[in-house]
Amino acid sequence: MKKIKIALLGAGTVGGGVWEILQTNKDNIIKNCGYDIEVAKILVKDAAKKRKDIVPKDLLTSNYEDIIGDKEIEIIVEVMGGIEPAKDYILKALKSKKHVVTANKALLANHGEEIIKLAKDQGVHLYYEASVAGGIPIVQTLKESLVGNKIQKMMGILNGTTNYILTKMTAEKVDFADALKEAQEMGYAEADPTADVEGYDAAHKLTILSSLAFGTTVKFDEVYREGISKITSIDIDYARELGYVIKLLAIGKEEEGIIEMRVHPTFISKSHPLASVNDSFNAIFVKGNAVGDLMLYGRGAGDLPTGSAVVGDIIAVIKGKDQPPVQIEETASVDKTIKPMGETESEYYVRLIVKDKPGVLGTIASLFGKHNVSLSSVLQKGEGVPSVSLVFITHCTKEADVQEAVEEIMTMEEVVELANLIRVENGKKRMGA
Amino acid sequence: MKKIKIALLGAGTVGGGVWEILQTNKDNIIKNCGYDIEVAKILVKDAAKKRKDIVPKDLLTSNYEDIIGDKEIEIIVEVMGGIEPAKDYILKALKSKKHVVTANKALLANHGEEIIKLAKDQGVHLYYEASVAGGIPIVQTLKESLVGNKIQKMMGILNGTTNYILTKMTAEKVDFADALKEAQEMGYAEADPTADVEGYDAAHKLTILSSLAFGTTVKFDEVYREGISKITSIDIDYARELGYVIKLLAIGKEEEGIIEMRVHPTFISKSHPLASVNDSFNAIFVKGNAVGDLMLYGRGAGDLPTGSAVVGDIIAVIKGKDQPPVQIEETASVDKTIKPMGETESEYYVRLIVKDKPGVLGTIASLFGKHNVSLSSVLQKGEGVPSVSLVFITHCTKEADVQEAVEEIMTMEEVVELANLIRVENGKKRMGA
Repeated sequence: MKKIKIALLGAGTVGGGVWEILQTNKDNIIKNCGYDIEVAKILVKDAAKKRKDIVPKDLLTSNYEDIIGDKEIEIIVEVMGGIEPAKDYILKALKSKKHVVTANKALLANHGEEIIKLAKDQGVHLYYEASVAGGIPIVQTLKESLVGNKIQKMMGILNGTTNYILTKMTAEKVDFADALKEAQEMGYAEADPTADVEGYDAAHKLTILSSLAFGTTVKFDEVYREGISKITSIDIDYARELGYVIKLLAIGKEEEGIIEMRVHPTFISKSHPLASVNDSFNAIFVKGNAVGDLMLYGRGAGDLPTGSAVVGDIIAVIKGKDQPPVQIEETASVDKTIKPMGETESEYYVRLIVKDKPGVLGTIASLFGKHNVSLSSVLQKGEGVPSVSLVFITHCTKEADVQEAVEEIMTMEEVVELANLIRVENGKKRMGA
Repeated sequence: MKKIKIALLGAGTVGGGVWEILQTNKDNIIKNCGYDIEVAKILVKDAAKKRKDIVPKDLLTSNYEDIIGDKEIEIIVEVMGGIEPAKDYILKALKSKKHVVTANKALLANHGEEIIKLAKDQGVHLYYEASVAGGIPIVQTLKESLVGNKIQKMMGILNGTTNYILTKMTAEKVDFADALKEAQEMGYAEADPTADVEGYDAAHKLTILSSLAFGTTVKFDEVYREGISKITSIDIDYARELGYVIKLLAIGKEEEGIIEMRVHPTFISKSHPLASVNDSFNAIFVKGNAVGDLMLYGRGAGDLPTGSAVVGDIIAVIKGKDQPPVQIEETASVDKTIKPMGETESEYYVRLIVKDKPGVLGTIASLFGKHNVSLSSVLQKGEGVPSVSLVFITHCTKEADVQEAVEEIMTMEEVVELANLIRVENGKKRMGA
C-alpha cells in the first residue's frame, strides 16, 4: 500500500470533519485513490491547551516549521480560516512545492489571484472546493463540467445562517432579531454575526464563483453587498401576498463581456427552485448557454459536508500529483468590465410610509414616472390611520433611476419614511417550467 | 494556437448539439483548454442522403475506416446511440489508442465493464458524462467530488419523458394514454415509447450510476424495473390526498455491502425536493455519509444540454491527454451482493377493487397481518356501489411479504381486482429539513 503524508492547518470544525472522514471512510478512499492518507501533523495555536477535539494529541504542533520543513508531507490542508496567518502559511507551502487544499473563502476572495498565480508558477496543485457552499461541488462543476458553456447567470443561496434566519422569519412570522437570536442559540450564527448577516460571507463566495464562471479575476470590493438586517416581517408578508419569498441571493451575470455581481435580499417567485431551499441549506442555480438551467443543492456548512469537499480535493491532488497541473497560456485571466450598480437593471419592491392625505399616491406615481420608473403593482394598506404603507412593484428599471426617484420622493413633506427597497428577480419560472 | 482533431460518430440531435456548441463557444473553449477543437470527420449512415443537419456536408463519411485510419484524429465522440455498431466502433477506437467520449447509456449499461477495461488496458481516456441525465454533472460528481464518501442512497428522476407524462397527469388530471400522446406530439416521446415508459432507459442510467457510486460492476439485468403505464389518475388522486406525488424513481442503496437497485413508480412526499422536479427535467438526490443530502437538477436531454456534457468531456480528455489516465490497482471493481427484490423493504400503497360486503375489510386486514404486513392507513371510497376501491398504506415491510399477502388476498371471492401496488419512499423530509 502506498502512503502519502498530509498536514492539517487547524483542528476546528472543518479540521475535525476531515479527520473523521479520513478515518471512517479509509477503505473507500484507498480504493478510490490507491493511497493510504496519513495525517502526519496538525497545526494548532496552542498544542498544550486542553481540548475536546477528536484529533489525536500527539499529532499537534504549534510550530509551522515542523510541517513546512517535513519533506515527507506532500499536501497542506488549510482549514484554519481567516486571512493571516493562513495566507503566509499557504504561500510558504506553495514555495516549498507542496500541494495545497484550502477551504478559506475570505482568503481566496481577497488574495486568490496571488495564490493561484504562485501555485501555477510552482507547478503544484491548488484546490478549493470547500471554500464555496460546503459539500456542494460547484467549483468543480464550473471548472470542469461546464467549461463548454458560456455562463450567463448564477444565483446562489450561499450563506446558511441568513437562509436559516429568513426561513424562520417566513415560516414562524418572527422578527429578524428573534430569528437571529435563535440562530445563535442553534450554533448557526456567530456571537458577532456581521460577516453572515451583512452579506460579507456570501460576497466572498460570489467573488470566487464569478472568477471561475466568467474567466476573469474579479475583486471582492467589486461585489455590491447588502445584508438582511433591515428585512422585517412586514416585507415578508408583502412578499408572500405578491407571490414571492425573500432570499439573500448572490447574483452574478455576464452579458456581452460586462459582469454584474451583487449580494442582496431579493424577492424571488415562490415557484422558482431556489424559493424552496430552506433552513441552513445552500443552493446554486446556474444558467449556461448550452446546459440551460442547472441547480446544485446541499449542505453549505458543517464539519462533514465541508470535510467531504476537502477530502474530495485531497484525493484529486493525489491522483494528479505525479503530473504537473495542466498549464494553458490561453487560460490567462481576461480583464472584463464590471457594471456599476447604478447601471444594473431589475424590478423593485419599494415600501414607503406616507401620511394618508389625498393626492399623495398620485404625486409619488408621477415622480416615479419622471425618473423613467414604470410601476406594475401598487398596494395600499392601513387606510384611515395617520400613516399608511404604500407598496410599489416596478417594471424592470435601471437601479440609478429608482434611486433618484426615491430620493426625490423622500423630499415630499407627506412621505415619512422609506421603509424598504428590495430588488425583485423575476425570471418567473417554476421548477421544471 | 494548438489544434486537435476529433471525429463525431452520429449527426443526430446530440451530434448537432455538440457541433453547435463547438462553434458558438469556440473562444471560450480555446481559453479553457488551450486547443482549437476541429471536427475533422462525422460518421453518418448515408453520407449522400439529403439532410437538414446543421453539420457541414463535406465532413460527412459513411466509412468508419476513414476515421479510425486517420492518425491525426485523437478523440472519437460517439453520439449515435444503440448497441451495435457503436460498440464495435468504440472498441476499435480504443484499440487504436484513440480517446473516447460517449453518450451511450444502453451500451455502457450492457457492456460497460468490457469497454472500461479496454480503455484502462490501452491507457487511453474514456468519458461518459452525457450517458446519464444530459447536462447534469452527476458522473463527475460521483467519480470526483464525492470520492471521500460512502454513498448510502441515490434517488433519481432520470427519464424526462416519463416525468413529463406524470407531471401532465398530475397537473391536468389526464389519463396516461392522453399524456403519452401529447408527449409524442411534443417530441418528448418516441413513436415506440417502450424504452422510456417501461423504465428501461432509467434502468440503464441507474446501472451506470450504481457502478460508480458503489464501486462495483453491476449488471443491467440486476436492476428491478417497472414502468408507469399502469398508473391511473385514480392513483394520482389518492397520492395527492395522502400527501404524495408519483414519480418514476431510480433508486440505488448500499447497506453493509449489499446493494439494492430498482426503477419503479414511487409515492414520494410532496415536500421532498424531488417532488417539485417537473416536466422533462431530471434530478438526482444523493446521500453520502459525509456530504449528507445533495441534489443535482437540470435538463436531462436535448441537443445543447447533452452536448454540454459531451463538450465538457472532450475538454477533460484534452487536458489530460498527454498523461495516461491514473491507474490504481486498488480501484479494481469489488464484487458486491445484490439484494433480491423480495428482500427489499419499503412502504406500500395497495389499491384493491372489492365487492362492498360486510366483513371484507376485516378479512383483508387479517390476511395482511398474517403475512407480517402492518397497515398505517386505510381509505375506502365509493360506498353503496357494488364495487369499491380499498386503499391501504403499509408500514415498512419486506417486498416478499406484501406480495404473498396480496396473492392470498386475491384468492378471496369478494376481491375483484388488484388495481395497483406502488412503493412508497418515505424519508418524509422536506427540502431544507
